[in-house]
Amino acid sequence: MTITPPELSVFESLESEVRSYCRGWPAVFDRAQGSRIHDEDGHTYLDFFSGAGALNYGHNNPVLKRALLDYLERDGITHGLDMSTTAKRAFLTTFQDVILRPRDLDYKVMFPGPTGTNAVEAALKLARKAKGREAIVSFTNAFHGMSLGSLAVTGNAFKRAGAGIPLVHGTPMPFDHYLDGRVPDFLWFERLLEDQGSGLNQPAAVIVETIQGEGGINVARAEWLRGLADLCKRRDMLLIVDDIQMGCGRTGPFFSFEEAGIVPDIVTLSKSISGYGLPMSLTLFKPELDLWEPGEHNGTFRGNNPAFVTATAALDTYWADGQMEKQTLARGEQIEAALRDIAREHQRSGAEFRGRGLVWGLEFTDKQRAAKVCARAFELGMLLETSGPESEVVKLLPALTISPDEVDEGLRTLARAVRETA
Amino acid sequence: MTITPPELSVFESLESEVRSYCRGWPAVFDRAQGSRIHDEDGHTYLDFFSGAGALNYGHNNPVLKRALLDYLERDGITHGLDMSTTAKRAFLTTFQDVILRPRDLDYKVMFPGPTGTNAVEAALKLARKAKGREAIVSFTNAFHGMSLGSLAVTGNAFKRAGAGIPLVHGTPMPFDHYLDGRVPDFLWFERLLEDQGSGLNQPAAVIVETIQGEGGINVARAEWLRGLADLCKRRDMLLIVDDIQMGCGRTGPFFSFEEAGIVPDIVTLSKSISGYGLPMSLTLFKPELDLWEPGEHNGTFRGNNPAFVTATAALDTYWADGQMEKQTLARGEQIEAALRDIAREHQRSGAEFRGRGLVWGLEFTDKQRAAKVCARAFELGMLLETSGPESEVVKLLPALTISPDEVDEGLRTLARAVRETA
Amino acid sequence: MTITPPELSVFESLESEVRSYCRGWPAVFDRAQGSRIHDEDGHTYLDFFSGAGALNYGHNNPVLKRALLDYLERDGITHGLDMSTTAKRAFLTTFQDVILRPRDLDYKVMFPGPTGTNAVEAALKLARKAKGREAIVSFTNAFHGMSLGSLAVTGNAFKRAGAGIPLVHGTPMPFDHYLDGRVPDFLWFERLLEDQGSGLNQPAAVIVETIQGEGGINVARAEWLRGLADLCKRRDMLLIVDDIQMGCGRTGPFFSFEEAGIVPDIVTLSKSISGYGLPMSLTLFKPELDLWEPGEHNGTFRGNNPAFVTATAALDTYWADGQMEKQTLARGEQIEAALRDIAREHQRSGAEFRGRGLVWGLEFTDKQRAAKVCARAFELGMLLETSGPESEVVKLLPALTISPDEVDEGLRTLARAVRETA
Amino acid sequence: MTITPPELSVFESLESEVRSYCRGWPAVFDRAQGSRIHDEDGHTYLDFFSGAGALNYGHNNPVLKRALLDYLERDGITHGLDMSTTAKRAFLTTFQDVILRPRDLDYKVMFPGPTGTNAVEAALKLARKAKGREAIVSFTNAFHGMSLGSLAVTGNAFKRAGAGIPLVHGTPMPFDHYLDGRVPDFLWFERLLEDQGSGLNQPAAVIVETIQGEGGINVARAEWLRGLADLCKRRDMLLIVDDIQMGCGRTGPFFSFEEAGIVPDIVTLSKSISGYGLPMSLTLFKPELDLWEPGEHNGTFRGNNPAFVTATAALDTYWADGQMEKQTLARGEQIEAALRDIAREHQRSGAEFRGRGLVWGLEFTDKQRAAKVCARAFELGMLLETSGPESEVVKLLPALTISPDEVDEGLRTLARAVRETA
Repeated sequence: MTITPPELSVFESLESEVRSYCRGWPAVFDRAQGSRIHDEDGHTYLDFFSGAGALNYGHNNPVLKRALLDYLERDGITHGLDMSTTAKRAFLTTFQDVILRPRDLDYKVMFPGPTGTNAVEAALKLARKAKGREAIVSFTNAFHGMSLGSLAVTGNAFKRAGAGIPLVHGTPMPFDHYLDGRVPDFLWFERLLEDQGSGLNQPAAVIVETIQGEGGINVARAEWLRGLADLCKRRDMLLIVDDIQMGCGRTGPFFSFEEAGIVPDIVTLSKSISGYGLPMSLTLFKPELDLWEPGEHNGTFRGNNPAFVTATAALDTYWADGQMEKQTLARGEQIEAALRDIAREHQRSGAEFRGRGLVWGLEFTDKQRAAKVCARAFELGMLLETSGPESEVVKLLPALTISPDEVDEGLRTLARAVRETA
Repeated sequence: MTITPPELSVFESLESEVRSYCRGWPAVFDRAQGSRIHDEDGHTYLDFFSGAGALNYGHNNPVLKRALLDYLERDGITHGLDMSTTAKRAFLTTFQDVILRPRDLDYKVMFPGPTGTNAVEAALKLARKAKGREAIVSFTNAFHGMSLGSLAVTGNAFKRAGAGIPLVHGTPMPFDHYLDGRVPDFLWFERLLEDQGSGLNQPAAVIVETIQGEGGINVARAEWLRGLADLCKRRDMLLIVDDIQMGCGRTGPFFSFEEAGIVPDIVTLSKSISGYGLPMSLTLFKPELDLWEPGEHNGTFRGNNPAFVTATAALDTYWADGQMEKQTLARGEQIEAALRDIAREHQRSGAEFRGRGLVWGLEFTDKQRAAKVCARAFELGMLLETSGPESEVVKLLPALTISPDEVDEGLRTLARAVRETA
Repeated sequence: MTITPPELSVFESLESEVRSYCRGWPAVFDRAQGSRIHDEDGHTYLDFFSGAGALNYGHNNPVLKRALLDYLERDGITHGLDMSTTAKRAFLTTFQDVILRPRDLDYKVMFPGPTGTNAVEAALKLARKAKGREAIVSFTNAFHGMSLGSLAVTGNAFKRAGAGIPLVHGTPMPFDHYLDGRVPDFLWFERLLEDQGSGLNQPAAVIVETIQGEGGINVARAEWLRGLADLCKRRDMLLIVDDIQMGCGRTGPFFSFEEAGIVPDIVTLSKSISGYGLPMSLTLFKPELDLWEPGEHNGTFRGNNPAFVTATAALDTYWADGQMEKQTLARGEQIEAALRDIAREHQRSGAEFRGRGLVWGLEFTDKQRAAKVCARAFELGMLLETSGPESEVVKLLPALTISPDEVDEGLRTLARAVRETA
Repeated sequence: MTITPPELSVFESLESEVRSYCRGWPAVFDRAQGSRIHDEDGHTYLDFFSGAGALNYGHNNPVLKRALLDYLERDGITHGLDMSTTAKRAFLTTFQDVILRPRDLDYKVMFPGPTGTNAVEAALKLARKAKGREAIVSFTNAFHGMSLGSLAVTGNAFKRAGAGIPLVHGTPMPFDHYLDGRVPDFLWFERLLEDQGSGLNQPAAVIVETIQGEGGINVARAEWLRGLADLCKRRDMLLIVDDIQMGCGRTGPFFSFEEAGIVPDIVTLSKSISGYGLPMSLTLFKPELDLWEPGEHNGTFRGNNPAFVTATAALDTYWADGQMEKQTLARGEQIEAALRDIAREHQRSGAEFRGRGLVWGLEFTDKQRAAKVCARAFELGMLLETSGPESEVVKLLPALTISPDEVDEGLRTLARAVRETA
């Protein structure tokens, strides 16, 4: 495919320098369907990025699209603040019936605003209120959002510096594998907690991702997560699982923590919860934590009803039985096998891979390599992004609805891009 | 109209106690069109609330709806992060041509995330980065959002307490009229700034609303705003106008600060910018402030393309000429005349009113009265909300597209509700 | 008197650049007695500075000296942490009998460490603990100390910048006269407190000096202090009077707040409490505020027993009757009369004066003038210092034990220095 | 020895509940000489506490006493702020000649105020100013003082809680031996520093005690200190050694860090620097760090001239040759041998000991045991204190000038107290 220079001058002259993804993908995108996205010059790309995990069911999923169009056409409520609406009730009921009850999860549902960082801010507020303490423990290479509360528990130094104030009240602990197995799990963390002279402010809560997507596809073992949940219980800290990127089936089960068998006190969901890329987020918590006063946290777009409609359709369509989970794991095995081949072929480049379900990372000794692979993949008609503090990991994040053939196509393109950047 | 008890049990059992608007309006809303909103039991309400200012063009505005449906039907990009898309380009171009250029405003446009608090967080970050200082001055009764950065410059003690940490780096100054004209404008503020011993940390920026919507419909005079802009210039502070609720034509002109003839360094827009109640926000700033590094601030839903589509349609439809502004001011006069009558009739209750364009407040000596008026209005088939730190102000916020007859109807209902709560 | 260049090279090469007083007084001091201080080159200076108020009874006061020598000679406990000692008991008993009981003040006594900032840190800690709130209100041009807690409530921007971190949890309010009488007392402060939307974090306490010594000899009126005490009571804030510089008789009565008839909740004393220039400080508080746990605040030198000995001797000698207060007020009138003459003579230079007891300030339109006056006074054999945020005020702080003749001599020298710097 | 109930009622009724040491030693002390302290009821105690390390040369050391009496008798300057005085010059010269030059240490000397926490506050301010960063790394079980800056880097949770505000800008790292050798030195710390995604705010400085006195007599190995110094150099952090308790010869050499062969960027000294228990402290730093502006940090009692006099005498008398260091190490061996015997005798109680020079700790499995041992020792006529976060360690801190016979006596009493509390 030949890429003719796209017309980007409007963006360059009118939009802020803060824009980033568009720099790696110099195209003007126009339409998309499933795992294919088309630019205005007629080029088509296979999408292995899926809106950073916001498009688990593919672009403009036809089932969701039908529900959305019907709703809009009949003048359903679009913007509802936190008014009661039929669309919200349908979502709440479906979420309860399809997701929570079958998993035996007893959570109250909060609509904290339309985006992930709103959900994290609400989770942190609630934890602090419940425990009467300010401190939060987060993990190395965590990513939780860009507003000041979420940013304070995010690891990336570059993004932290953007705050313009010292970010405090958070302390990082080592994520699983961070010290390469040279230190027993939670040795340091527990010692700090049990020692009245340690200097650690007693935390209200711990916030964790089960797989760190932005942080470099770092996968926590189930036993590590169980150890953490146990530590939280023993040391009177709330456990918050930020499932914004890894939830909604990305790792196989609906919630990424199901595999570990833990039950967090608070869970955040966003990205793919609407299923259609529409802004929506949820903060879930155990009923005894529902200490909010009416209106203590609010927000203009917390009642994005079109998103409730597509969310309801997505849950009904994909989660009423266990098919989606099985399919995701199957596609995951397909990817794993291919990555194993690539790693074997490029073992002199130190190629390593890791992941679960439909989230995978590929890393090389040369930290610049990942960016080169993604750039080459783009030229070859595929959207792939990097992650990690130094953008050193190639991140694979295809739609859960991708077909086996599309997976194969993507993996072949990836293999070629790796080969051609050696 | 008789209200039969609506079916609210799902909300009560599944949703968090944090919900608030739904408590004052015990109905389950289903459909809406223009200034009318319908519940599932067949009742219709005249909307003088407009999604807290997020629905300036009414519910499901047909022009915008057509554009949105067309876009969704043709599988336009829904979720785009900050990728370049045809929908974003159309919006940027239209915003430049219809809004910025005719007003001689030279602003770079940033998409900081889908909701107002994202826009404020980005504005504060940028101001701090540009000036290398942490402190921000805000005003009494300001409302800027619920995430920690925005909440620190918000006045409401109840919402501030929700933070669970001490909110610092912000200092409140008296908004216009706050001290009832007993103190010269900015006497205190300027004295603090000029005195090297005052103890005020030198501010990076001042953030202000031209009319405080949540704070009680407090209207700043044009000369006060000019005085503030002048003070900022003389004392090397950036001026941020938070135009999230008052922008997009609410006060008449597109930007609420146009009347004062000031040019803020940074402007935030959200609520009605998409025109259809879809989550979208903008942070605008002078080109010399575009100091962002690529990706220094990001967010999953900053590229909500369906919102770009309706935003573009709204600008094209309503702002290509000066009709909307004229119409808003005309409707405003209609409201002002009616409020004058109400105030005269209820002067023994201390009734007072204030406002501009299509944002008005009505206050009584008895601070409980406003809530009673709104409750009675609801029974009479009208959505009206209170504002102010003690919910002591009846807030009128009809759609800009409301008809003169609907305005009359609403004002008659309001007058009746006032009378019946005496 | 001709000043030959003193030998200062040791200080210049070995001591930090942070040193300051020594720069204005280029001499190496060796001995002192009463109000006279002698340098090693044989020059004698009349001291109108008194160790910034730490030497209210003059240098090496003979009565205190005798008590100190006796104590040291008999090997009395020198360093006692917070052990019970006979010297501490004598001090406590005398302080109770001579100072507290006659004034009907019921205060518990805390020895928070040897210096003023220790006393302020302890006061702020206790206030925060008692009220469960972080915020403290201080005043423009306040000075409370250099450690981080005290510095956060100190006004001087230059000293604040030395913190190296943003100083938060404090908010400045206008000191008496700050807005030149154009604003009713406490209008702004009370409005912030009563308004639930003001954005002021509810303060645990207010900390105030009755006369701001470092801030420019700003004298609060008695009615202003009473208004403040009343506001604190009505609004549930503790009132802390920092009497470190103005206590111990500087303004006439032992406590500077006696004249106003107020009873602070917490009082800090230091500087002249030992009477001999030895490091010692006290934090006093109402018994119901004695919420400390044993050892919750500690410090190595909080039991400086030689200081207890001289402190006891000073109280016994000077405060057993009302003579000291009368004498101070008489000397104060002597100074006031002379300053009136100087101000009249130099009214074209905008000379103004203010003060009470034995603390006075003299200010000119030209802000550089004060430093010139002090420099010229030094050449003429007199120690005088400036104060104020721009060192714009000549500060007169003679020993309370100064003789009328010495006062006259000093005032004549001052008058000459003013004249010769015109 | 029989203890008759001492007269403590004055302290109980007049002094704050914050007092602590006096509770463990219910006596009223009156006189002291060398290692003996006498109460008013005629009892004598052998002092193995030495003012928490502030009396390294014993109580009322006769050489220092003579110098002090002479100075006071001749009316030498007592209180000097930061004026140049002959007493200060003598100290500076002697400190340079006797301490710094022979050790090849090139430090500027700052007098930051009279107590240890002043020295730490100044050190932290300077480090933050020099590096332009807020964050400081401290260690588990560190103790640096009670004012807010120092308290934020102190480990003890009980004392931290006294702050009344969240203590931020500090992060604890594991002190040597903290994780029982299960983790390579600095593995975690260095990983945090090298990883741009770790979430650790880049520190301006690291503050460390070579032996943690209050923290439980935790002894850092020389190689650990060298590793830390090396890490600081490689990662652009300043190294601050807080030598307030361990300096002035406590561990043998004048500075406790000499054994490790490191040269800190900043050093704090206090406690025994005056040698006579008089309040005095120093902050030392490399000349290139002398970035202070004149007066940027100040304090009323930073020129405690009587303390300069005794400090000078102490340096001249004890540090002009290497005798003091040798003697301290010899007495240390005497203690170590005795502790070995005690540990062997009580190995079933888990008795363990550690220390260096003349600072030793003795710990038992039963954490209450230490307090019992100290209480019994008091009954037997000996002052001994506990340390550690749970007061679980018996701390031996005799004067450096103690005689071998007194050491023996103390050790016999200790052995008996241990035996009698079994």
